[in-house]
Amino acid sequence: MLEEVNILRIAEGEASTHQDIVVKEFPLTIVLNDQEIVTLLCSPADLKYLAVGFLHSEGLIREKEDIKRIDLDEQRGVAQVWTREGQEAVSQVLPLRIKAAGGGRTAFLQSSEAPARIESELKISPQEVFNLASDFQHRSEIYRATGGTHAAALCNYQDILAFAEDIGRHNAVDKVFGQCLLEGLPTQDRIFITSGRISSEILLKVAKRRVPVLISISAPTDMAVRLASEVNLTLIGFARGRRMNVYAGEKRVTLFQPSGG
Amino acid sequence: MLEEVNILRIAEGEASTHQDIVVKEFPLTIVLNDQEIVTLLCSPADLKYLAVGFLHSEGLIREKEDIKRIDLDEQRGVAQVWTREGQEAVSQVLPLRIKAAGGGRTAFLQSSEAPARIESELKISPQEVFNLASDFQHRSEIYRATGGTHAAALCNYQDILAFAEDIGRHNAVDKVFGQCLLEGLPTQDRIFITSGRISSEILLKVAKRRVPVLISISAPTDMAVRLASEVNLTLIGFARGRRMNVYAGEKRVTLFQPSGG
Repeated sequence: MLEEVNILRIAEGEASTHQDIVVKEFPLTIVLNDQEIVTLLCSPADLKYLAVGFLHSEGLIREKEDIKRIDLDEQRGVAQVWTREGQEAVSQVLPLRIKAAGGGRTAFLQSSEAPARIESELKISPQEVFNLASDFQHRSEIYRATGGTHAAALCNYQDILAFAEDIGRHNAVDKVFGQCLLEGLPTQDRIFITSGRISSEILLKVAKRRVPVLISISAPTDMAVRLASEVNLTLIGFARGRRMNVYAGEKRVTLFQPSGG
Repeated sequence: MLEEVNILRIAEGEASTHQDIVVKEFPLTIVLNDQEIVTLLCSPADLKYLAVGFLHSEGLIREKEDIKRIDLDEQRGVAQVWTREGQEAVSQVLPLRIKAAGGGRTAFLQSSEAPARIESELKISPQEVFNLASDFQHRSEIYRATGGTHAAALCNYQDILAFAEDIGRHNAVDKVFGQCLLEGLPTQDRIFITSGRISSEILLKVAKRRVPVLISISAPTDMAVRLASEVNLTLIGFARGRRMNVYAGEKRVTLFQPSGG
């Protein structure tokens, strides 16, 4: 995921040449049942997870059992996915999807797949949020090396269960959910963390997987806050050090932890 | 561009309710000659600039004179643009474009519009970069209020000539270039600044406008560095305080300013 480059560094009034590290950008074309769906610019790791997570986010795959075969050609940058249903089912969905995917990807917002209320009884304490956010930021190695990536993770109260980095916010999230789908990791009653801004689209990706708590290191938009309230999702932003903002679903945050127990 | 929300803030072991500010997210549908092109999720400001800048970036408008009329309906979130050439010309370009726009927008990379070498004689000193980056960050008010936006600007050596903020990296860049197109601001022999990561797509948007110097507050990708070298564009990253990295086109950076003159 990294590449060495020669740079001229200017600091404290001195100029000097250095070998520096930048993050790689890789074009991955996703093909579903012989039909080209999209070319994503991404970080070249976890590409099967990315392909599957993207197709699942876009509603083109519903469950693991839909997938008959996945072929990844890293040389050519092509991930081919075949489903049980084959060509016909996809063609019906595709025209609508591709149009909506052009930049905004807002189909989801208006579609019949709008997520239902999340009924999870999960609760989390501020200390647990701080610990998870701290672990998460320590895991983000590529970011620390290059400053050029986003990260995303699925967690339980204590541990990171699936983790991905990518140059794209959306790709990092899709990689984690792709891994969950392929490895059969349940997402209900779990916690999702992302380094990036929470837009409505990221919120809907997480809500679609029935995750009741979403934590971001950075900021949400107004639309994400509104949608989180509507689907009963706990939305936490700016989880940094021992601070956090709860934008929606406060009832899942336990302010005082019972001692002992 | 801002919205007030009620939050629960947890800091230093205390929980308290606050009114906080988050950035607005607004769906803008761009219609070209009665044909729906895309819905962008954006910050609701400079929407005409965004529509025009997006269409120009995508190659659907070539110059200001192509535009016959622009109607912006802020209530419905629709920007309608009519061109001289009318329906026919657009339909020819569109099928290809929309497909490529699905997430990755890589059409540009492979298209015949790949930018030629930039031959500008412009030079810039580190001190001028530091001053511009500092002015730029002071202008980014929405970011400072909410942490949720990107900014972009066109500058000369000393001054910011056009500036935009948006929740999307691409939108902020398109807004600035849309303003340049509509107001007839030349982009050759100018300097472009962005807060966001420099991917190949951002680099190509800037190179397409013949801007010889691109400065980012954050990191570039390997592909952006490679493309910058190919098109002879000066690429500066991590311009923070009195530090910067020059990734390509070092010859335009004057390391020692002649005193006096």
